[in-house]
Amino acid sequence: MLHRPTVTLLTDFGTRDAYVASTKAVLIRECPTARLIDITHEVPRHDVQCGSITLERAVDGFPAGTVHLAVVDPGVGTQRRLLIAELAGQIIVCPDNGLVTWAWRRHGGGKAHEITWRPAKFSNVFHGRDIFAPIAGKLAAGHAIRTVARPIDDVILLEMSPADEGSASGCVIHVDHFGNATTNLLYDRIRKQRIKTIRIKGKSIGTLKRTYHDVAPGKPLALIGSSGLVEIAVRDGSAAERMKIKVGDPVSFQ
Amino acid sequence: MLHRPTVTLLTDFGTRDAYVASTKAVLIRECPTARLIDITHEVPRHDVQCGSITLERAVDGFPAGTVHLAVVDPGVGTQRRLLIAELAGQIIVCPDNGLVTWAWRRHGGGKAHEITWRPAKFSNVFHGRDIFAPIAGKLAAGHAIRTVARPIDDVILLEMSPADEGSASGCVIHVDHFGNATTNLLYDRIRKQRIKTIRIKGKSIGTLKRTYHDVAPGKPLALIGSSGLVEIAVRDGSAAERMKIKVGDPVSFQ
Amino acid sequence: MLHRPTVTLLTDFGTRDAYVASTKAVLIRECPTARLIDITHEVPRHDVQCGSITLERAVDGFPAGTVHLAVVDPGVGTQRRLLIAELAGQIIVCPDNGLVTWAWRRHGGGKAHEITWRPAKFSNVFHGRDIFAPIAGKLAAGHAIRTVARPIDDVILLEMSPADEGSASGCVIHVDHFGNATTNLLYDRIRKQRIKTIRIKGKSIGTLKRTYHDVAPGKPLALIGSSGLVEIAVRDGSAAERMKIKVGDPVSFQ
Repeated sequence: MLHRPTVTLLTDFGTRDAYVASTKAVLIRECPTARLIDITHEVPRHDVQCGSITLERAVDGFPAGTVHLAVVDPGVGTQRRLLIAELAGQIIVCPDNGLVTWAWRRHGGGKAHEITWRPAKFSNVFHGRDIFAPIAGKLAAGHAIRTVARPIDDVILLEMSPADEGSASGCVIHVDHFGNATTNLLYDRIRKQRIKTIRIKGKSIGTLKRTYHDVAPGKPLALIGSSGLVEIAVRDGSAAERMKIKVGDPVSFQ
Repeated sequence: MLHRPTVTLLTDFGTRDAYVASTKAVLIRECPTARLIDITHEVPRHDVQCGSITLERAVDGFPAGTVHLAVVDPGVGTQRRLLIAELAGQIIVCPDNGLVTWAWRRHGGGKAHEITWRPAKFSNVFHGRDIFAPIAGKLAAGHAIRTVARPIDDVILLEMSPADEGSASGCVIHVDHFGNATTNLLYDRIRKQRIKTIRIKGKSIGTLKRTYHDVAPGKPLALIGSSGLVEIAVRDGSAAERMKIKVGDPVSFQ
Repeated sequence: MLHRPTVTLLTDFGTRDAYVASTKAVLIRECPTARLIDITHEVPRHDVQCGSITLERAVDGFPAGTVHLAVVDPGVGTQRRLLIAELAGQIIVCPDNGLVTWAWRRHGGGKAHEITWRPAKFSNVFHGRDIFAPIAGKLAAGHAIRTVARPIDDVILLEMSPADEGSASGCVIHVDHFGNATTNLLYDRIRKQRIKTIRIKGKSIGTLKRTYHDVAPGKPLALIGSSGLVEIAVRDGSAAERMKIKVGDPVSFQ
């Protein structure tokens, strides 16, 4: 455990209300030395897949020992399970609703635990503050997982996966702030194939480019995004807007 | 005073400009060990009531010794007073324009002081940076309130109050990021009454539910929000949009 | 160098994705004691001038020893230079594309260096995370600039400048969250002149006022903004909306 543990936060709480701050207040009560880093609080409401992709990017970047608190929780107050996942030397605390999927798949799985700890009193509509945050704070402070949870082996995963080695097709899994579309095509798994052109929305946009500047302004291109996945972009523009790309759209290459 | 004092920030400055960072720069000059936590900077411009509700949520969550810097200040540069309020073991630094109201009423009042300290030079349009932030920083660093302010007993409060014990009607006081509408009906004050149905916008939406999942998707409901107040919501939707609920709308129950 | 160095971040990354957090993860790896402060991540995409104005406000506020990481980088992946600028006792790490302009001009210039250091492996589309952040982290941790960069004397600057001493005309350089329009008229340079009225968009709006309250609600005015520049505002409203003011609009006074 780090001397000054990092706790990240990813939610769909938005940034207009005190929900995020209320959650942080609990975190620093439980772990006064924690460094808190926001991933985002603008996951679209209840969009577990979008949250999952974004969470994985954080897991990828932070060092071992980091605790990630992730709350996109349409089932709050119901009997869904509450999860602690250990992977890549890091800890994720989140509802067991698939939010862990992309990190789990990209990092080769991990250990899963169901949170059994409950506070004496808690709101039925704000488990982020009342259950997830105390757990994340306790783990950051060095408590053992077994003191608050029990092992499980059936963590819930969404259907989303990186495309297989040697596959020549995939789909869009995320659209970012710039309108760039991330696909599930991992460059490491397709690099051995000869790629003449990428196809999306019925259009051929050529082979993989190195930078946005390898095409003229306003033109579409495919390149390796910063996460190692094939990304569809429009130079100095938004691929999502210009090409009407949405999550789920098929992508292929020849 | 905590070894590492927490200072929270709540403003209507937005997050596009350097206003918030300029304010934080002053805070860490005055109190280099402070932990800074943003409540929100998206209070609608000059909306003192909205800021007041959100500020109270922060006061409710943070431990004793926390200093809250709150600036929603339509009167900046005029002769309005500048306030330090002590309540719930915490300190609020804000204009004396009613911003303290909801925290003051929910926490049973407190001690009020008018800030008399002024820097040698300050902008007439940015007291947040030039007066409020130095004061908040000094108090976080352990300065006594009496060194920068004098006691007053006529703090300005908005008309907004929690509904009385035994009351069967109230109003909407806040609409959050999710479109949930918070009312001024404190559950602790109405729990002894038998509630058959809640009425809002001419509609009866049934008795208090436990979670959003106690109604079908798209249906309205009332439940106890995370702040202990009755809240009007629409499952998996926005009550504000679907029911056209606005701050000030009357709510009653039978 | 401060015991607990401050690193600020200014980007056009937005706040929906993990880009900012990925950048912060690198910063705290390189400098675990750093205090991270966001300036903004909402610079409009590729808007170097807007980023430049906002960056200067941060430079103005923070103490000596602060490191500013600023990434608005339309040319990412191309042969543009990567810059370290020293000015006002602070360090700016950014692309050499004019982003440093306003800080450079307001603080009387400084020393410029081209970053020569490159990591063993880096993405062509995310130099913010892979080159700028490690450099900013290293400098915050106390590394000497000469270990990662070489001096240059031809830093790239945009055409934007503060209006000359004695000038009676200028232009709008920034529109803020409130719709207030900042001009390049530095009050210190025009204060000796007798100003009868300010003209913008074909309208005379009177002499410089002290506060927003010196005109009636909804009326336009000019005053000294918190950065010492003449600002055009509308009391309790947005000058940008009401007067259709845009960056570049001419302003004059008589």
